[in-house]
Amino acid sequence: MVAGRGLFITLEGGEGAGKSTQLRLLGAALEQAGHLVCQTREPGGSPGADILRELLLSGRHEFAQSAEVLLHFASRAEHVARVVEPALASGAFVVCDRYYDSTMVYQGYGLGAEKGMIRALSGMIGLVPDLTIMLDVSVETTLRRMALRGGAQDRYERLGAAFFERIREGFLEVAAEAPARCVVLSGEAAVEEVAAGIWRIVSERLSP
Amino acid sequence: MVAGRGLFITLEGGEGAGKSTQLRLLGAALEQAGHLVCQTREPGGSPGADILRELLLSGRHEFAQSAEVLLHFASRAEHVARVVEPALASGAFVVCDRYYDSTMVYQGYGLGAEKGMIRALSGMIGLVPDLTIMLDVSVETTLRRMALRGGAQDRYERLGAAFFERIREGFLEVAAEAPARCVVLSGEAAVEEVAAGIWRIVSERLSP
Repeated sequence: MVAGRGLFITLEGGEGAGKSTQLRLLGAALEQAGHLVCQTREPGGSPGADILRELLLSGRHEFAQSAEVLLHFASRAEHVARVVEPALASGAFVVCDRYYDSTMVYQGYGLGAEKGMIRALSGMIGLVPDLTIMLDVSVETTLRRMALRGGAQDRYERLGAAFFERIREGFLEVAAEAPARCVVLSGEAAVEEVAAGIWRIVSERLSP
Repeated sequence: MVAGRGLFITLEGGEGAGKSTQLRLLGAALEQAGHLVCQTREPGGSPGADILRELLLSGRHEFAQSAEVLLHFASRAEHVARVVEPALASGAFVVCDRYYDSTMVYQGYGLGAEKGMIRALSGMIGLVPDLTIMLDVSVETTLRRMALRGGAQDRYERLGAAFFERIREGFLEVAAEAPARCVVLSGEAAVEEVAAGIWRIVSERLSP
């Protein structure tokens, strides 16, 4: 860690893994420990990136697969330039719900987009997380928690169990390819227990 | 040329070089010669790509430079997948006002975006024009024709002579780097004379 610069921590995982809840808890714990914290999420996370998020998630227009991948990275470039990099430079910890691993897993593993292209685009973005926590739950848990959540299904939720199986395997493979950056943690336990696990992992990175 | 597949011809050049007029004339000449013709333009050229064109040209939001480059390529990927490739596959000639050379020249040479990134993204798009005609005019002609055109200035028109000097040099350098694909033609002469020059170049490519 370069002195004065914050750490960039990403949370990854499929639907119902508990990312949003754990992001809030991790942000609060970091603040309690005296750090400046910027909590954000992708796609979106800044005004320009949110315009693209809306385009991607609303289904207003169905983009060709390569165009969709490029839109995700355009949104990411905007978010990194406008929010993440300035926050890190100011010394804040940035905790982000989803980053480029999600594009690799959802578009690449899940929907069959070309993984080499996604890898090359990730390289262009340049900013590599200091730590990525992959929350892992079984597909049964994913489906059960999505049902509990209720409300309208989004485009991914409609894709069913086989899709979520590919998503789960995708995250585990991505983690295995980048073991220095990624830590897989089960998201099956109670919220407090998972939060304690995340805090242990983060604390280890913080201690010199 | 693969039998049955059309040719992809792009027209490039700075403001006031006469691209739009010459595109129409070339399209009409190709139709007269018995070819199916699809006339199109970038950015935009299809419903999804036009959504992104509006985002890029309206100035509604000022995107970070890398995000803007990625948006141009997202729009291009959509246009290629939805319009250009299907038209070529059906045997039509596609004549297109601007393509990736314009991103290299306007964003790269003109505004200082990273050229290596633009080159890599062009490679991802995959579709290389069979022929690119670069219409070249002096910066004086560019400024004179823009003034004659009147109306509100767009974001590029406001950038002035030094910008258009970089644009002109950019197109000439791109053409020099790809001599088998690109032909530079002066756009200073009368419309009919330039059209005749374009038709000579295209006819040479058409004769076996």
